[in-house]
Amino acid sequence: MTHSADLETLIDMMAKLPGLGPRSARRAVLHMIKKKSLLLSPLADVMQTVAATARECLNCGNVGTTDLCEICESEKRANGQICVVEDVADLWAMERSRVFKGRYHVLGGTLSALDAIGPDELRIPRLLDRIRTEEISEVILALNATIDGQTTAHYIADQLPDLEVTSLAQGVPIGGELDYLDDGTISAALNARKSF
Amino acid sequence: MTHSADLETLIDMMAKLPGLGPRSARRAVLHMIKKKSLLLSPLADVMQTVAATARECLNCGNVGTTDLCEICESEKRANGQICVVEDVADLWAMERSRVFKGRYHVLGGTLSALDAIGPDELRIPRLLDRIRTEEISEVILALNATIDGQTTAHYIADQLPDLEVTSLAQGVPIGGELDYLDDGTISAALNARKSF
Repeated sequence: MTHSADLETLIDMMAKLPGLGPRSARRAVLHMIKKKSLLLSPLADVMQTVAATARECLNCGNVGTTDLCEICESEKRANGQICVVEDVADLWAMERSRVFKGRYHVLGGTLSALDAIGPDELRIPRLLDRIRTEEISEVILALNATIDGQTTAHYIADQLPDLEVTSLAQGVPIGGELDYLDDGTISAALNARKSF
Repeated sequence: MTHSADLETLIDMMAKLPGLGPRSARRAVLHMIKKKSLLLSPLADVMQTVAATARECLNCGNVGTTDLCEICESEKRANGQICVVEDVADLWAMERSRVFKGRYHVLGGTLSALDAIGPDELRIPRLLDRIRTEEISEVILALNATIDGQTTAHYIADQLPDLEVTSLAQGVPIGGELDYLDDGTISAALNARKSF
């Protein structure tokens, strides 16, 4: 033991974060200790604040500090569109593009037969509730283009026969080079070609 | 803004840690919020403890919770050897190998003409003090095999003409394949060859 038990605990916990391992956790902890007053203390404080206040929005599953998140509270965002995403990270990614002006619904994962995750393990019943009670005109499925994501999209679309259900376009990403794209993306882009 | 100011601050601060960027900081924060009682709160607590207690050892520069670190306090480690390292991370790396039984001295960096770091910006005067006052028989220079590290090693060796000064051996790392080693390492290993 070259360092105290608390330091050891801190390193072990940091190493559990996604993207960090034992070595990078040690580096991060030493960096924080070097900048104790600028980084370690404020970080501990804000973590404690977030731990005390962060909660899931009861309506959509976004992370916020109130029972209803800012998007669900904003009347402006009640434009009849609801965008269904897997995770809060996906909601944030959509928001960063600043294009979508409606509300969201975070499923909290995808259907998965292997992991025994059915509709009731996700926020799907709550989505159907919302579609009944809020005035929804269009459901936009922004699920990941993975097998589980697409299975979940099909399941949700099947539950909503009377509603306009759309999904994100698939094709060549902006700045993408054809030579580096996989066959599936190229054939999807070709099938969905548009007049120029 | 899709999330609260505190969340934003937490993500910004996490993104400043080495090895994390904005995207991995968002992932880490969402992960912590999902495991709030298991990870976020305990992590905040232990960070606050470490922020309150962590300090540099007055003798060697190691990080600990007391004025003198565990190694400097242990009489067993006073075997006359002092191992000079650049950083606390290097000290920890040496300790993990469990071979060295003496004490350490953390310089806190390397001499660098470009960055205007001279001996007085490092813990070199304190090292010379320690060599005068503690009973030191051997100084082991365990500095990185970089140009700045080796410059610093030569500078320190020049200050200690009457003492045994050694440095870590250079050669083929354990498990290393010759085909993947750089020319410098191979020629160093060849020059330092030993009878088999």
